[in-house]
Amino acid sequence: MLTNLEHLGLAVNDLEAATTLYTTLLGIAPYKKEHVASEAVDTVFFQVGGSKIELLAGTSPDSAITKFLAKKPEGIHHVAFEVDDIRAEMARLKGEGFVLLNEEPKHGADNKLVCFVHPKSAAGVLVELCQTINS
Amino acid sequence: MLTNLEHLGLAVNDLEAATTLYTTLLGIAPYKKEHVASEAVDTVFFQVGGSKIELLAGTSPDSAITKFLAKKPEGIHHVAFEVDDIRAEMARLKGEGFVLLNEEPKHGADNKLVCFVHPKSAAGVLVELCQTINS
Repeated sequence: MLTNLEHLGLAVNDLEAATTLYTTLLGIAPYKKEHVASEAVDTVFFQVGGSKIELLAGTSPDSAITKFLAKKPEGIHHVAFEVDDIRAEMARLKGEGFVLLNEEPKHGADNKLVCFVHPKSAAGVLVELCQTINS
Repeated sequence: MLTNLEHLGLAVNDLEAATTLYTTLLGIAPYKKEHVASEAVDTVFFQVGGSKIELLAGTSPDSAITKFLAKKPEGIHHVAFEVDDIRAEMARLKGEGFVLLNEEPKHGADNKLVCFVHPKSAAGVLVELCQTINS
């Protein structure tokens, strides 16, 4: 099962402007800025109760965020749910007919193993499963 | 400040099919089905950790969800944040230049007072503020 709405990922055109905007909107300062080279994104994280808001800006034309923003206005890109055992959940969902976008967990931002579920499998929502890596 | 990501609202074409889909995806059964006459929507709620997933289907052509789905594919409609004092947060955000879609809090689903912030104010995201009504 999915145990928490871990974060909501927002694709933004201007990371600095969006960081200022969300700092004011949420009334909370971000706790982390992180470049994720494997995804070609710069990210900024806010902690809101038990969930996070992740602002995402692409740093290369190949970035999924850059491609998203070439087709759509900025807004919600994905919703990530925490899982205890990502491989077990991937196997469970695959067995139920959900289409996974990666067959093996990959390293995402914020010290996570992640897997994406195709939006066509989830009523138009790009769903991310994420498991915290125990260091 | 906004204290928790209270729920994520998803606009769906077929509430029964989406309920079955999300029950499987989340691995969690819904805890409530509620008709909200004031918004002309049927809703189904799932509790996922400290947040909820709200499936929304319009029940009239005037419903905001019906209008949304006439223009866009199904997917994420809004993100709701818990606040302790909705009137204070509305005044704070209005003072910061955010555009509110209702000037007075209104009654929403799940025993809440709610106010929406225009997506143009929030980098393309329809943001809901919600305060639990103490009975």
